[in-house]
Amino acid sequence: MAISAADLRGVFTPIATPFNGDESLALCELRRNLARWNETPLAGYVILGSNGESCMLDEDEKLRVLRAARKEIPGNKLMIAGIGEESTRHTITRTKQAAEIGADAALIVNPSYYKGMMSSLILTNYYFAIADASPIPITLYNMPLATGIDMSREVVLECSRHPNIIGMKDTSGNMPKMGEIISDVGENFAVLAGSMSFLLPALAIGAVGGILALGNIAPAECVELYELAMAGRLDQARALHRRLLPVNQAITARWGIGGLKAALEMRGWYGGPPRSPLTPLGDAQRAELATIIRDAGL
Amino acid sequence: MAISAADLRGVFTPIATPFNGDESLALCELRRNLARWNETPLAGYVILGSNGESCMLDEDEKLRVLRAARKEIPGNKLMIAGIGEESTRHTITRTKQAAEIGADAALIVNPSYYKGMMSSLILTNYYFAIADASPIPITLYNMPLATGIDMSREVVLECSRHPNIIGMKDTSGNMPKMGEIISDVGENFAVLAGSMSFLLPALAIGAVGGILALGNIAPAECVELYELAMAGRLDQARALHRRLLPVNQAITARWGIGGLKAALEMRGWYGGPPRSPLTPLGDAQRAELATIIRDAGL
Amino acid sequence: MAISAADLRGVFTPIATPFNGDESLALCELRRNLARWNETPLAGYVILGSNGESCMLDEDEKLRVLRAARKEIPGNKLMIAGIGEESTRHTITRTKQAAEIGADAALIVNPSYYKGMMSSLILTNYYFAIADASPIPITLYNMPLATGIDMSREVVLECSRHPNIIGMKDTSGNMPKMGEIISDVGENFAVLAGSMSFLLPALAIGAVGGILALGNIAPAECVELYELAMAGRLDQARALHRRLLPVNQAITARWGIGGLKAALEMRGWYGGPPRSPLTPLGDAQRAELATIIRDAGL
Amino acid sequence: MAISAADLRGVFTPIATPFNGDESLALCELRRNLARWNETPLAGYVILGSNGESCMLDEDEKLRVLRAARKEIPGNKLMIAGIGEESTRHTITRTKQAAEIGADAALIVNPSYYKGMMSSLILTNYYFAIADASPIPITLYNMPLATGIDMSREVVLECSRHPNIIGMKDTSGNMPKMGEIISDVGENFAVLAGSMSFLLPALAIGAVGGILALGNIAPAECVELYELAMAGRLDQARALHRRLLPVNQAITARWGIGGLKAALEMRGWYGGPPRSPLTPLGDAQRAELATIIRDAGL
Repeated sequence: MAISAADLRGVFTPIATPFNGDESLALCELRRNLARWNETPLAGYVILGSNGESCMLDEDEKLRVLRAARKEIPGNKLMIAGIGEESTRHTITRTKQAAEIGADAALIVNPSYYKGMMSSLILTNYYFAIADASPIPITLYNMPLATGIDMSREVVLECSRHPNIIGMKDTSGNMPKMGEIISDVGENFAVLAGSMSFLLPALAIGAVGGILALGNIAPAECVELYELAMAGRLDQARALHRRLLPVNQAITARWGIGGLKAALEMRGWYGGPPRSPLTPLGDAQRAELATIIRDAGL
Repeated sequence: MAISAADLRGVFTPIATPFNGDESLALCELRRNLARWNETPLAGYVILGSNGESCMLDEDEKLRVLRAARKEIPGNKLMIAGIGEESTRHTITRTKQAAEIGADAALIVNPSYYKGMMSSLILTNYYFAIADASPIPITLYNMPLATGIDMSREVVLECSRHPNIIGMKDTSGNMPKMGEIISDVGENFAVLAGSMSFLLPALAIGAVGGILALGNIAPAECVELYELAMAGRLDQARALHRRLLPVNQAITARWGIGGLKAALEMRGWYGGPPRSPLTPLGDAQRAELATIIRDAGL
Repeated sequence: MAISAADLRGVFTPIATPFNGDESLALCELRRNLARWNETPLAGYVILGSNGESCMLDEDEKLRVLRAARKEIPGNKLMIAGIGEESTRHTITRTKQAAEIGADAALIVNPSYYKGMMSSLILTNYYFAIADASPIPITLYNMPLATGIDMSREVVLECSRHPNIIGMKDTSGNMPKMGEIISDVGENFAVLAGSMSFLLPALAIGAVGGILALGNIAPAECVELYELAMAGRLDQARALHRRLLPVNQAITARWGIGGLKAALEMRGWYGGPPRSPLTPLGDAQRAELATIIRDAGL
Repeated sequence: MAISAADLRGVFTPIATPFNGDESLALCELRRNLARWNETPLAGYVILGSNGESCMLDEDEKLRVLRAARKEIPGNKLMIAGIGEESTRHTITRTKQAAEIGADAALIVNPSYYKGMMSSLILTNYYFAIADASPIPITLYNMPLATGIDMSREVVLECSRHPNIIGMKDTSGNMPKMGEIISDVGENFAVLAGSMSFLLPALAIGAVGGILALGNIAPAECVELYELAMAGRLDQARALHRRLLPVNQAITARWGIGGLKAALEMRGWYGGPPRSPLTPLGDAQRAELATIIRDAGL
């Protein structure tokens, strides 16, 4: 049965894609990592998201990653496939492939190469075309830092009315706008924070969960933060928020995927190198990262 | 006795500056407006802030506004003077004048005309020079939308160490950064949300109050939102947040000072025209604004 | 024999990729279009550039377009292959494929998805890795409007020292920076204007040619503008520049690929639709475009 | 008799405002500097421009600077007064004062504090109100780097139709847009490059002159560049352009007013300190600047 907005409550993580030392896909390590994440209270995974270096994989590699992940993800955790193509036709093709492989939903970033042409109307039509054709529910992915486009409130409101569009991951961190969007859309559209750095404020104004890079290396703590906030225990939530912030900063804005993969290793998962031109952390950076992680009590 | 960061807890409003029909200063109306705000639970006022059209006033007019306000503000409400000059020497002069007139603190926006030169070091030195010279405590004013400069975490941290710099109004709405700043600074530095649109999320991560344009026309409701959030009553806070958002949007991003002044009139204060080139609302806009205000139950 | 910077003098055009009514590749039309461009004084073509909707094609389609173009391009015109991948390994693979098919050079846009990580060092290393591995010379492609990254003067200077990096297409239109870059690099590195809208000013400060969308529909006029400028006949150049500007604006910033393809049809080439979510021009837009083209005397 | 667009042909310089060691106005030095500039082929001066630290002066100081300059500027050189106020009423007051003192024209930067409100309509109405009230012709000043607003082609076109608005200084360096504007406006509206860094390309497409910070320290060379370009001697113009670029960069983007004033001293004018928070150059920077100036053959 198709999932709905209610299934998107909670904390998800966009998992890293493991590579061997020569940057080739390390699918065994992917499955081993998932096996370990399966023991955590995470609500599910995004496969092939930004943190999964999706844009670094070729068409065939993407399919192999989805298939490997599918085998390892149990029924009680959602599998969300990240999709990022510029053309409507290829997005539909990839979404159908993901559905066939068994993804529960697709997280679809907007096209952005021809920025000047991406009007609200074009973007809405784009998502409607995907949603009409997709066998599985889709969620919007607003990521202005990578795409240079901050989808308008109008696009989100329009899309929220399509029965096969069930939510949005928003990494903009724009709370006034997120507040307006949450007021606009009904209960059948889930707004998810795209980073631990604003999960707590987002939950305060009505977001229902998050898709958090930090979930890769601190899944239990991310879920705890979510639950404290939902219970209105703001003092404790605030303290945990402050404790996790430096780690989150280290594996995202500061060191990106290289930092995330080094942190994975420190926390017992397989890390490995990112794909070039991204670079792994150097020794000094690893030492600093280790300190940041230790200081956070992880 | 000089005020401290603890005195900045709560909700302040940057009051509008009333003009007559010919755009000359309407100081009687200013005092009458203040008399009515004095009956509300607001913690105090910013005189000559952005919403006070400070940049529209000449040097003499600014002094007259400060003096008129001083006469009307009672001892149990703070009077904060907005200062915005490009040179260190003039900022010091204006701050001393405000202190002499009796302001409790000064809210000082960073210089911004020579953007390329405004390094973190220059900005820190600037605020230190002001703080050293000022007879009253000062607060930083970060307003990237107007200044084109988003003061760095480093500037704020450095400034927080000066005993005469007691807080910051931040209008950026950048929650990740605000969270880091709150973690950085101690209890002797108050971080204040610069808009109702992110007051609730900001309080969730540790801000201690807000300086809110919306406080001009909905002071009681803004204070209620603050108190609900501080009490951890998130469901009620969220509902009030949603109710107020459209009004806030109307009097800030959408219609600016023209909208704020029209709303003041609808809510029983004196409004009057903004100074040209800003324009008053037209009839159709006023009708729409009235509907927005009514829909919010104000 | 490998081409050099001197071969990049003159006017090139990034050709449109024709699609049938169902958006499938129209390779016969591609070859017919090329046959007609071959009769013009253009110095060569970029296949699979931004105007060629490269990002809209899948891996297989890209190879088919390159092969079809190769068959039609005569020895006296350069064939430059556009490449745009995020990972070093895939960029190398695609560049080798293009070389094998017979491209004379590759025009390589910088990776941009992980903007925060794309330091000058990372970008320089990226281009060096490609240049080391590529059997054919490569040129940088700086396109901040699409990528959100404006490659620094330092990156360009470093790259200009690699013997297998022979030039740059710059669409930023930043004349002060272009002037500095031209001063930096020697004669073995060709700087090319990325739009007719600043070809004349760019030539004035030392650019040696252009890769111009407008070359698709007004090749003779673009070459004439180039030659007038090189001859120092500024009055005539200026008059032609003014005449062509509105057409250029119509097929780029204003209507993008949809406008370009409609203009191709009006000028006797095959146009066809762009790929969705890009849209073809409506009737009213086509009428307006026809007027703009006629007014320019084309 | 009022000047017209034709009088704006050639090279103007926005002169620095000299301060004593204690940052007080040094009016004697101002007059001595002007006496020396009067011996150069400059067409005139902007007093109280951005390079004159206008925003650092109070109301009274601005009047004193204008009066001192007026006494020293001979009839064969234009005196243009820079004006920068946020309100229509104060801009009119300042413009009338400048006219009374004897300025030939006023260069008026657009209001920018309330960026979101500064629609094309508001800006056009603003300039029309000023132009209607001003006894002297006015010119637009588009300076997006400082104001955060890039005035639209529509605003400029509308303004060009007012008989008392005779030109524009544009510091954006946006050649495509400048080309369109020059096509739009007639001969009664002069478009002036706002920096030496794009004077040559701007002249190539039809600008008629420049208001150049570099004119402070290299007036003869700037005029020579202008004349070479107007004569179509592009090779020589290009060589001079390259020679001057590093000096221009040093006294503008890199070191700003501090660099400009240090360079003035090296070239025989009075420099002195900028006003704080701007800083004078340190010893190492002065040594580097001296090398840059020497390398340029100045």
